[in-house]
Amino acid sequence: MYTARFRDPAGTVRTGTYNEGTVTAGGETYDLSKDDVTLLAPCEPSKIVCVGLNYADHAAERDKEVPERPLLFLKPPNAVSPPNSTVTLPAGKDRIDWEAEFAIVIGEQCRNATADDALASVAGYTCMNDISNRDDQDIETNWVRGKAFDNSAVLGPVLADPTAVPEDASIELRVNGETKQSSSIDQFFFSVPELIEEISAYMTLEPGDVISTGTPAGVGPLSDGDDVAIEIEGIGTLEHSVRIP
Amino acid sequence: MYTARFRDPAGTVRTGTYNEGTVTAGGETYDLSKDDVTLLAPCEPSKIVCVGLNYADHAAERDKEVPERPLLFLKPPNAVSPPNSTVTLPAGKDRIDWEAEFAIVIGEQCRNATADDALASVAGYTCMNDISNRDDQDIETNWVRGKAFDNSAVLGPVLADPTAVPEDASIELRVNGETKQSSSIDQFFFSVPELIEEISAYMTLEPGDVISTGTPAGVGPLSDGDDVAIEIEGIGTLEHSVRIP
Repeated sequence: MYTARFRDPAGTVRTGTYNEGTVTAGGETYDLSKDDVTLLAPCEPSKIVCVGLNYADHAAERDKEVPERPLLFLKPPNAVSPPNSTVTLPAGKDRIDWEAEFAIVIGEQCRNATADDALASVAGYTCMNDISNRDDQDIETNWVRGKAFDNSAVLGPVLADPTAVPEDASIELRVNGETKQSSSIDQFFFSVPELIEEISAYMTLEPGDVISTGTPAGVGPLSDGDDVAIEIEGIGTLEHSVRIP
Repeated sequence: MYTARFRDPAGTVRTGTYNEGTVTAGGETYDLSKDDVTLLAPCEPSKIVCVGLNYADHAAERDKEVPERPLLFLKPPNAVSPPNSTVTLPAGKDRIDWEAEFAIVIGEQCRNATADDALASVAGYTCMNDISNRDDQDIETNWVRGKAFDNSAVLGPVLADPTAVPEDASIELRVNGETKQSSSIDQFFFSVPELIEEISAYMTLEPGDVISTGTPAGVGPLSDGDDVAIEIEGIGTLEHSVRIP
């Protein structure tokens, strides 16, 4: 079961059921390849809580130790970009990296969850590209310029029901068709319930909020004109292109 | 000229004109001390962009050098608490500090502003208590547990038109009537226009968003039952109390 947010031919934003390239809402079914409909990000987060270094192989490539508790950072709502978009990135930087991530979308308001009951607040899962401006990230105390800039969180293509995603789902990122990241979410140091427990001990998670669970090894620099695809087993493939002015 | 957001006796959220303890909206004037109206935070930020170490005296007391460019961090919408509230803070921490701040409220969407045109996007100014959980802040990479927890941004009491606030406005914080912080906003390292230019180079600022400009010397730990007052010349006095479970 998959849910998509989309703009219908009249320009109205709707939420409907996604099924093999079609979306159905209000009794109408649209073909995404033929009809004048546009997929939007599958949720409208009031905040994105991101996790750093949640796969051992990525921690090693960034020369960091895996932290004892999740390394957290934030992206604001302006960071969100929809699937199939051309994402404009900051100009004049030496290195802006892709980071394929498995993203949790909250369905019900949640505070002080325990790992045992945390999954009850999850609406489903989607893909995210946690685009990272290393020039600034590597020299600032909090990663605001480095991680929270406009378009730094590409989300989609759809929201997958938790039952659709296997516990060892593969996660892969391709740039211009070439595989750059390939791992599995069973490599997480901190599981989905553990992350929700830890974050909701400090802040309320709202419906539509996103927790992005970190990236595996294989990050690398984006170039102007690149086509990016992030495929997670059980969710689908998030595609976007890149423009660097 | 002062603007207040408030809940009227029917429970409707309204924005009106504030004048010496009264608010006027829709042809009705309410007396805050007598009528059944409740002041709310003067805006609904999609994000709060905070500035660290923007007064030399506070940088010294935290044993930090003043950065070459503004140190930025984020608070999400859940952090907001209204004036006159009893703010519940995280339990079991050794030290949660007050930080009186001068807060900029954005009025018009703003991206890539220059310092010369930045003030055109400002709706006005208010007071903020940037409540800071040092236990976690001092040991985490990004200040999420330390700065972005629920109720960590008390905002109010009203929105002051920029013309109401002198360039050397005094800023003072009192705890249980005793002055703990006392400075002036002419001590800023980075001015209001410089901050808007720097932040909007990376992200769009939306109407209602807040930039909080850092705190002067004199931070210290809050205790259960404390009454806090933050007074900024030309704005007014933000009051709230503290509950630590």
